[in-house]
Amino acid sequence: MKEFILKANKSATSGDINIKDLPGSAGRLDLVCRCVNSSFFLSHDLRRDTVFYSVHYGEPNAPVALKFIGDELKRLSPDERSIALFIKKALEKDSSKLWKESTSGIYTAKKEFRDIIVEKKNENYRIFYLHLNGKPLEEYNLKLDKDNGNDEDVLFVLGDHIGIGEEDEKFLDELGAERISLSPVELHADHCIILMHNALDKLKK
Amino acid sequence: MKEFILKANKSATSGDINIKDLPGSAGRLDLVCRCVNSSFFLSHDLRRDTVFYSVHYGEPNAPVALKFIGDELKRLSPDERSIALFIKKALEKDSSKLWKESTSGIYTAKKEFRDIIVEKKNENYRIFYLHLNGKPLEEYNLKLDKDNGNDEDVLFVLGDHIGIGEEDEKFLDELGAERISLSPVELHADHCIILMHNALDKLKK
Repeated sequence: MKEFILKANKSATSGDINIKDLPGSAGRLDLVCRCVNSSFFLSHDLRRDTVFYSVHYGEPNAPVALKFIGDELKRLSPDERSIALFIKKALEKDSSKLWKESTSGIYTAKKEFRDIIVEKKNENYRIFYLHLNGKPLEEYNLKLDKDNGNDEDVLFVLGDHIGIGEEDEKFLDELGAERISLSPVELHADHCIILMHNALDKLKK
Repeated sequence: MKEFILKANKSATSGDINIKDLPGSAGRLDLVCRCVNSSFFLSHDLRRDTVFYSVHYGEPNAPVALKFIGDELKRLSPDERSIALFIKKALEKDSSKLWKESTSGIYTAKKEFRDIIVEKKNENYRIFYLHLNGKPLEEYNLKLDKDNGNDEDVLFVLGDHIGIGEEDEKFLDELGAERISLSPVELHADHCIILMHNALDKLKK
């Protein structure tokens, strides 16, 4: 499984969102929406083998985690506004420790960013942290089984415009996360997801 | 200079746009907005060396061409809604044969998709057509001058969800456009722009 997790430092944690102001009052929810687009949309198709998490630390109920499962998504369009409407609906529900489904393939829970990463580590996922100063992607030996589709499970950790912060970087280092670089210039998280997918697509063919 | 041109078969050609319905009544204007995002946005910076054209063939005044010049853009945010508001403003003006500025760095003209490509060919741009069955990018010898920034001028031609159509493909073949492939799977135009930028970024470093 290919999974991505974004720490959304300022993104809203209740459904009281102004859809006309995703960047401002909703705390860069536009970026979250574009990450959903990048995670799943192919031309006339969806990436069914992908999961995307966004963990929101904005007002008023931080943290709230969202999970999008490619294989279960329905009626999702690629534009920010329609993705934001699904997120608004998910954030309107009370979240608890366990994942609860809002609409097809979209879940919420009261989970911390680190909790999800630890869960994945315990499930033997290989953890990568996307960072400008990481090792170039090409230097990693990603085990993709071309014959039977039995790929290595991987989680890619992404920061928003603020970044994940020093403490979470230290946490990732201690967990053994591998720092990976996709570009010589600093990019938005949604653009990194496109590049990561492309690198994996090319390895598989 | 790095330039991209998108044929937007259904996108609106007047400012009478419902910002709440970019994919539907505005004719996939959401895709045009995301292409603008992909063309220009870096983390905390803009790509000043890039130009993006979108040629609209939707109702009611087709064609209308839009030009975005990275070096002149001001106050542009990365979210679809705010880009769409700039496009709406540009489409509200009457367009003529010559480019007219609407807001900083955003121009409109009554030009055909092919006219712009021919202009670029006449300016000695190298023309690439991004296509699933093209030659892999890595097999092209792109001349990027690492020492003095005097890069080759390149134009990348992109289709929307409908594609550019057989006649325009024939036109590009006759013009000597080179077919280039970025991915083994079929991708949205905005995702292709990200991949193309990344390939060029890596070549330059």
